[in-house]
Amino acid sequence: MSLRRWITVTLTVSACLTPLAALAEPAFLAIPLGTSGGLYEDDLSSYLLAPKGSGDFLALDAGTLMAGLRKAAQLGSLDGIVTPADGDLIPAAAMLQRHIKAYLISHPHLDHLAGLVINAPDDAKKDILGTGPTIDRIRDHLFNWQIWPAFGSEGSGVLLGKYRYVRLVPAVAVPVAGTGMTVEPFALSHADGYPSTAFLVSANGAHVLYCGDTGPDAVEKSDRLQQLWRRIAPLVRTGALKAIFIEASYPDGTPDTRLFGHLTPAWLMAEMHVLAAAVDPAKPATALQGLTVVVTHVKPSMKAGMAASARIMQQLQSRNDLGVHFVLPEQGRRLAL
Amino acid sequence: MSLRRWITVTLTVSACLTPLAALAEPAFLAIPLGTSGGLYEDDLSSYLLAPKGSGDFLALDAGTLMAGLRKAAQLGSLDGIVTPADGDLIPAAAMLQRHIKAYLISHPHLDHLAGLVINAPDDAKKDILGTGPTIDRIRDHLFNWQIWPAFGSEGSGVLLGKYRYVRLVPAVAVPVAGTGMTVEPFALSHADGYPSTAFLVSANGAHVLYCGDTGPDAVEKSDRLQQLWRRIAPLVRTGALKAIFIEASYPDGTPDTRLFGHLTPAWLMAEMHVLAAAVDPAKPATALQGLTVVVTHVKPSMKAGMAASARIMQQLQSRNDLGVHFVLPEQGRRLAL
Repeated sequence: MSLRRWITVTLTVSACLTPLAALAEPAFLAIPLGTSGGLYEDDLSSYLLAPKGSGDFLALDAGTLMAGLRKAAQLGSLDGIVTPADGDLIPAAAMLQRHIKAYLISHPHLDHLAGLVINAPDDAKKDILGTGPTIDRIRDHLFNWQIWPAFGSEGSGVLLGKYRYVRLVPAVAVPVAGTGMTVEPFALSHADGYPSTAFLVSANGAHVLYCGDTGPDAVEKSDRLQQLWRRIAPLVRTGALKAIFIEASYPDGTPDTRLFGHLTPAWLMAEMHVLAAAVDPAKPATALQGLTVVVTHVKPSMKAGMAASARIMQQLQSRNDLGVHFVLPEQGRRLAL
Repeated sequence: MSLRRWITVTLTVSACLTPLAALAEPAFLAIPLGTSGGLYEDDLSSYLLAPKGSGDFLALDAGTLMAGLRKAAQLGSLDGIVTPADGDLIPAAAMLQRHIKAYLISHPHLDHLAGLVINAPDDAKKDILGTGPTIDRIRDHLFNWQIWPAFGSEGSGVLLGKYRYVRLVPAVAVPVAGTGMTVEPFALSHADGYPSTAFLVSANGAHVLYCGDTGPDAVEKSDRLQQLWRRIAPLVRTGALKAIFIEASYPDGTPDTRLFGHLTPAWLMAEMHVLAAAVDPAKPATALQGLTVVVTHVKPSMKAGMAASARIMQQLQSRNDLGVHFVLPEQGRRLAL
């Protein structure tokens, strides 16, 4: 085989196995502040995201903030982001006040909000973005002077106005103030129609999809995931979608009646197959090859503790007939996407 | 001096300096699950308490549960409490489900409740005790299907009924089901009349007083602390009161207008002087000698982090002209009281 022909064959095979996303330079930096789906109060869903090279992050959910920022500082993940220009705050505090510019809240369950509420007195002014039902519940039940002071821009009683509530409309992209990113929300179904949200975050022609808690369409009797897969399929096809964050809360074998609006590895793979068919109906088996899927919200077990995550990852890998690149995020550890 | 006279003098001096409580055997075991007044989501107010030798604890507030139980297990503080009879749960989980029999909630601010809400799905059936305003807000704003499923025994929608709400009436002692203890609540003022509570917990003729967040009477324009000191003065006098848990959230120098219903070391000492005068009007200077006061709810600083606690303790000691035995609790570390 000539060198020229060898290169051509190799590149052709690579192109079949690897989407453009995996060949390209990373476009985003993510820092997980909390990764689990309950139980331990210091590791609840929250992921910082910024375009590569930017120090202006948004937080996707806010279950744990300061405990995760402390861990990130210990791991060196805030190096080069928090600088002497941020003053004499401890690094975690500087990151909270100066470099988290906005919160995108997928749904108002407390495991996605507790850190934001607890840390509000020490936070800086910024926006909280969510769909109407999410913002309403934060306003009415948390920042309401009953459970916590009214730090928001709406509500009854004296309004402290530290947080401006920004109501997102499904399928309408808007800029996230203070960052170089836009967000487009999509409705998800999280048990009995409880409103959850997926966020498509975009910057410089690259995208990340973050899904809040969701059940599978078949169990939720919904087509919301299917619609979402159709919307993002073109971005997967071109390699512009750098990663999907999506949950796998419970292990395989959990009965559908005990999912409470969550996914198992089997259900997540079933949904990935729907996405694959939307990306390439002719060759779905290779449509998601190498696509990064960050596995969120694994529920620690009362018998195994955090070891539940390893089990979920094993189950996902054993079913992974699409070549998806599953990643288990680690609290405080940078992810280049 | 004869031996007999030396012994007599020594015992007399000791009796003047040391209340009976300090001479007696410990009557309670406390395990702090969270000690700080904010910022870090894994160390928020919660203290387990049981009569010495009992494995049936109540939790005084529930800001952090599982993260504190994990720490307690690491430090060996659950040894001999969690036993093989508890089955194959991890020790922290066994303690949560089998050995925490009830929650006493001082007030419904989220830093005193977040752990209880987050861990509810994995908890066992038990009681939540609090005054009416506390129970109402837990029911209406947290276990309400909007922020979290309705795990309580009251509310609208389907009630899961895992927790029975028990409404306490000020100055009326009632048994805490599942434990050998009774509790008598007292109203406290926590900024602009926000309702907080002190709990006098009693077993076998011994007592512990736990105070929820409170401002000083002078700032709150209230006499609630004064009334409380009068009520417990006889118990201090006889040595039956083993400890007071009370807050010192902010350092000295914090303006009264920025206390938000909290105490400083100076204000805490001022309140201790009121207590001392109630215990022994003739000799207040020695009335609290050796009394254990557990200092709770120190607010970590954005500049110093958890080092804020050392500063508060230093300020307290420098003002401690009553010989009070101030103790800084450590998450997960046993306290014999």
